[in-house]
Amino acid sequence: MPVNLQAPSAESLLPVRGVLLGTAEASIKKPNRKDLLLLQLPAQATVAGVFTQNRFCAAPVIVAREHLAAGKGVRALLINTGNANAGTGAAGLAAARASCAEVANLLDCEEQQVLPFSTGVIMEPLPLARILAGLPQCVADLRENNWHAAAHAIMTTDIVAKAVSRQITVAGKTITVTGIAKGSGMIHPNMATMLGYIATDAAVAQPLLQQMVSQASDASFNCITVDGDTSTNDALMLIATGMSDAPAITDEHSTGYAQLQAAVTEVATLLAQAIVRDGEGASKFITVKVEGGNSVAECKQIAYAVARSPLVKTAFFASDPNLGRILAAIGYAGVQDLDVQQIRLYLDDVLVAEHGGRAASYREEDGQRVMQQSDIAIRIELQRGAADATVWTCDFSYDYVKINASYRS
Amino acid sequence: MPVNLQAPSAESLLPVRGVLLGTAEASIKKPNRKDLLLLQLPAQATVAGVFTQNRFCAAPVIVAREHLAAGKGVRALLINTGNANAGTGAAGLAAARASCAEVANLLDCEEQQVLPFSTGVIMEPLPLARILAGLPQCVADLRENNWHAAAHAIMTTDIVAKAVSRQITVAGKTITVTGIAKGSGMIHPNMATMLGYIATDAAVAQPLLQQMVSQASDASFNCITVDGDTSTNDALMLIATGMSDAPAITDEHSTGYAQLQAAVTEVATLLAQAIVRDGEGASKFITVKVEGGNSVAECKQIAYAVARSPLVKTAFFASDPNLGRILAAIGYAGVQDLDVQQIRLYLDDVLVAEHGGRAASYREEDGQRVMQQSDIAIRIELQRGAADATVWTCDFSYDYVKINASYRS
Repeated sequence: MPVNLQAPSAESLLPVRGVLLGTAEASIKKPNRKDLLLLQLPAQATVAGVFTQNRFCAAPVIVAREHLAAGKGVRALLINTGNANAGTGAAGLAAARASCAEVANLLDCEEQQVLPFSTGVIMEPLPLARILAGLPQCVADLRENNWHAAAHAIMTTDIVAKAVSRQITVAGKTITVTGIAKGSGMIHPNMATMLGYIATDAAVAQPLLQQMVSQASDASFNCITVDGDTSTNDALMLIATGMSDAPAITDEHSTGYAQLQAAVTEVATLLAQAIVRDGEGASKFITVKVEGGNSVAECKQIAYAVARSPLVKTAFFASDPNLGRILAAIGYAGVQDLDVQQIRLYLDDVLVAEHGGRAASYREEDGQRVMQQSDIAIRIELQRGAADATVWTCDFSYDYVKINASYRS
Repeated sequence: MPVNLQAPSAESLLPVRGVLLGTAEASIKKPNRKDLLLLQLPAQATVAGVFTQNRFCAAPVIVAREHLAAGKGVRALLINTGNANAGTGAAGLAAARASCAEVANLLDCEEQQVLPFSTGVIMEPLPLARILAGLPQCVADLRENNWHAAAHAIMTTDIVAKAVSRQITVAGKTITVTGIAKGSGMIHPNMATMLGYIATDAAVAQPLLQQMVSQASDASFNCITVDGDTSTNDALMLIATGMSDAPAITDEHSTGYAQLQAAVTEVATLLAQAIVRDGEGASKFITVKVEGGNSVAECKQIAYAVARSPLVKTAFFASDPNLGRILAAIGYAGVQDLDVQQIRLYLDDVLVAEHGGRAASYREEDGQRVMQQSDIAIRIELQRGAADATVWTCDFSYDYVKINASYRS
């Protein structure tokens, strides 16, 4: 079950002026579930995004990048679950383009103004006909107050829908930020089988919006890992419709820039953490913070070594304070000149290890107490610099194996 | 259960002239099991080894390296299970030294002529008194024909003991090579919670023996992964007693050098594969071969990305040909200029993917047939160079989680 994660209520999700959402049951993988989502944007909207770095990136990722680069503006986004359209070669590219063409036809825009996204099983042909057949249902359903259904339409192995809204006030005017995301397996830095869509009615110039989504992504989706697998389809898109009455944000010195960046980053962070809390088989939410490093890079390297270690993760699943496994993971993280004598390891407020071994003050019952919590913080002090990094992960349970052994059945 | 792995019979293990082995039940972690092994070597023996690269390397690893570097020759090796003596700080170092001193006392040699090794739980104090109390039992048991008991004495979560012998004939004289190893979790390149001891009665000069063990290790123990965790205690030691009647091997041009290197590498490879076949929870043995790369390094990088992916490993556990996960792992391996259009993916003899997607000739039932085997080969052709690399791994099952969630109980 998801770890301390509430499903969002429909009332908590605030419409973003100009963003219309419509869903459909297209029977892409299974019948009787929402599996297709269409977003329609106004002409003046700006859109920016970050995509997977997997070399086997999916056909829709290739097409979405192409269409963004064409610079004609974005009028629609189409998202399907049930099939990733990845590892599908030339046929997959043709299918992604055909789906954009049909959306363009229905919404009276250009094919290059439509961005396609897919998530689901890899290396199976996209059932294009079913997607095309579902599109009119999406179009008929298009409306602003539809984020709750949209969050449900993009779920795959997710147990809980992920969506959050925030509002800020800039120059006396309200700006809304609402985001949805999906993902719970194949989750690793540089995102994962993870799709995220955040929209605001602020007016934000390109390329400032690109900078904003990159910063938000680095502080959120690029700090999580469930299983260390980086997917073929990841994307985080940031949409700004410009329909708020607040003044336009044109550069980093604009009124409201810092506030909006903070709100977008907060929404992205809550969505990213929601993905880990709903990680496949997760029973614990674990924050790994590495402090006092020479660089953020080495702090992240150590944090990820700990966060993706199956031995560490199974120990947390068992609530077993077998914490030497954390030391082992620190040791093999690949930071060559690390002085283990300097390292302090904390579990929440409990000092576990220092001077290369177990702390004299450490008592097994203190470790045991923390291990039984559902939210746990691991803090590693390197004592060699001023950099730090935080990574969020979950434990590794029977259910992870069960879910992934039976994914296609 | 171990995958296609027979327990070695006592008769199959050939004594190595000059190597005496003695075991004891020292109750280090649990009573009534052999958990202490002592090897005694003749004065003229040469010894070489490779050790873990984990920065949190264990106290015995530090001491063994020191004693080897002292250059006084090695007269004994002491191995305990049940406690890794890692993450134990200054007290751990003192305990390792004290165990060497007592062996030296009992066998009438110098403390620096004794090498200590430990394996088991990390960050708990070594129960030195129990080890010292067990030593006389080891000494009383010392004999040449004792490899079978020795292989059992070093087991931890291993289900099957790992031991193998080979003989070669050089200049009409017989040379014997016998090796034992332990390990089944925390197994990753650069070794793992893995200990290996290979002895020969050949006469081999130092540093040739060091070169020989490094080559054997690179082709065997450094090609396996069970869970991607590199342990604090790994060591592979190669012992040459010089008591065979075959001529001494002094350099790479010596008669018998190539034959002995091949025999040592074969023994090391069989032991390394045995560790994977007995991997924690393993139900499949998987060979990942990457061919046609620009360098061995990039081939290994891709092979390890596939071999350690939890998604790939759970698919093999389920015998589910969800083979797009292999493409995803190739894609995120980190080889930046990889052209996925050129890649061919085979499962045994079945062509699965080419031209960036599923092969036209591929049929699900062919993939299904191979997935149901217990020994499976994944072959990845990069078609961009002449280098190749092979990695051995196992699948990821409920039992892996079960074993590691309950390791200390």
